[in-house]
Amino acid sequence: MPLPPDATLADAGEFGLISDLVALFPQGEHVLIGPGDDAAVLRIRNGHVVVSTDLMVEGRHFRRDWASAEDVGHRAAAQNLSDINAMGGRAHSLTVGLAAPPDLPVRWALDFAAGFAAECALVGASVVGGDVTRADQVVIAVTVIGACTQAPVVRSGAGPGDVLAITGRQGWAAGGLAVLGRGFRSPRILVEAYRRPEPPYDAGAIAAEAGATAMIDVSDGLLGDAAHLAEGSGVSIDVRRAAFEIPEPLQAVAAATGADPIEFILGGGDDHALLATFPDAASVPDGWTVVGEVLEGDPVVTVDGSAYDGATGWTHF
Amino acid sequence: MPLPPDATLADAGEFGLISDLVALFPQGEHVLIGPGDDAAVLRIRNGHVVVSTDLMVEGRHFRRDWASAEDVGHRAAAQNLSDINAMGGRAHSLTVGLAAPPDLPVRWALDFAAGFAAECALVGASVVGGDVTRADQVVIAVTVIGACTQAPVVRSGAGPGDVLAITGRQGWAAGGLAVLGRGFRSPRILVEAYRRPEPPYDAGAIAAEAGATAMIDVSDGLLGDAAHLAEGSGVSIDVRRAAFEIPEPLQAVAAATGADPIEFILGGGDDHALLATFPDAASVPDGWTVVGEVLEGDPVVTVDGSAYDGATGWTHF
Repeated sequence: MPLPPDATLADAGEFGLISDLVALFPQGEHVLIGPGDDAAVLRIRNGHVVVSTDLMVEGRHFRRDWASAEDVGHRAAAQNLSDINAMGGRAHSLTVGLAAPPDLPVRWALDFAAGFAAECALVGASVVGGDVTRADQVVIAVTVIGACTQAPVVRSGAGPGDVLAITGRQGWAAGGLAVLGRGFRSPRILVEAYRRPEPPYDAGAIAAEAGATAMIDVSDGLLGDAAHLAEGSGVSIDVRRAAFEIPEPLQAVAAATGADPIEFILGGGDDHALLATFPDAASVPDGWTVVGEVLEGDPVVTVDGSAYDGATGWTHF
Repeated sequence: MPLPPDATLADAGEFGLISDLVALFPQGEHVLIGPGDDAAVLRIRNGHVVVSTDLMVEGRHFRRDWASAEDVGHRAAAQNLSDINAMGGRAHSLTVGLAAPPDLPVRWALDFAAGFAAECALVGASVVGGDVTRADQVVIAVTVIGACTQAPVVRSGAGPGDVLAITGRQGWAAGGLAVLGRGFRSPRILVEAYRRPEPPYDAGAIAAEAGATAMIDVSDGLLGDAAHLAEGSGVSIDVRRAAFEIPEPLQAVAAATGADPIEFILGGGDDHALLATFPDAASVPDGWTVVGEVLEGDPVVTVDGSAYDGATGWTHF
């Protein structure tokens, strides 16, 4: 008997919900056994396997009134796929856990899964397993597995003389969040950028082939993540404000809110841009912008040669 | 500066907490890059990779007043390691996500991690990555990755004429939970069995080599999980009550609570025993007990030839 349109997870029950969710996840050729057994079984070639995991908590990483379930699904997948991108790898398999209150509409869970699956399809990855259970608030737990065809690009390889470069939208999601936080819905392009990031999925593997010395995806804020590169590599990094072109919608939001638009760019995460260092400007692939340089010195990040006094990122507790 | 003994996650901050947690997780030789980068990097041989994921929610899967943080760590690892065991594989790598309220004591998180690491060490597996974030209640998300040296044993391979066999403690955790639920603390051996299961970690791979036709770990309850085998394989399974020896502590709890001790065994999960089918009794490895048989017929589970009217498992919503 089909469930009514407003059915909740409590109405559907665990096993009914799982079979409806699983139906939304097509399986790639490398998946020998998908969801439904004690574990999924994958066929993996020799080589480097990369693994990452992330949690998203309702009220903290997303709000159900600020983003549709489908958007949340896209974002949850995107932020994990981006971690594999940042190693120079390509994701092939994900698991997703959904803890949720029993009054969550089944529709929300299904739309979430559809968005999640659609984002995974962008890179050809499969959702091979998952878990659903009851909790007081929605918590989404994702693990992603990928492969590197060459040595993974870590955070510790930057050296003095390298250039710092970025690819992908940066600051757009932070601008969108500022708009939503003030109760507005436009500029729509920024709100959409917050709801559904568009990480540059092919750029990581290309950067690895081009000789990137260190790489990270921007999720904690550009300066905060640059600091992770600086600390990992034991170098100083200087970022040049003037290197960034300020997109028109960010200028508009900044004007409306009295902010300096560069703050969205330097402090914003959530776009999942890639930030990498390369031996020289000539080795930087097309589509990247050189925005700074790597220097000898204490592992800190400066802006135009000085300490930066704006917000640099995100604190979890 | 060291934190005071009663410090909370809010006091420690995300990055301080992460470095203290990471220090508790030794890395195996197959781990090229452990926690701390965008993703961990593993060296994997050609073959079958098995992957599973589970969520544990405070108040639902554990209570902080019923089990120590270290016990919860052991259980969280055990239930995931057991899923790889149930495929006939051996786990090598895990990720763990911890969502927690800011007033959670740092001590709890560290003890949890120590218990988790100790359980993983039993099978030589490494915690290669994780995430910590804020939530209203403690939610633990684990993903485990393992390898099979032969074809994985799935739920769908049982055929009429096979025997059903079990290995590992069964019903002990359910007995311990019944004890705790009545406000008691003894028989201590059952309470300990609930707090810290002892899955038969070597038995899965041995059963696979011995020709097990289908296998599952008992986490939803013996009859409930037998039903998953019956449904997966399109067969009927009959379980014989008399095949089970009732351990003395279960008899004691049953007597004290007025229950039939077989109910703990037929309905209990959480011990992570293995339930498998084999072509005949001769192929059942040492340490297993034959407890039933596989028959042609509708995919249902009977007890001594009849429908069972007690509790068969666990519902999540």
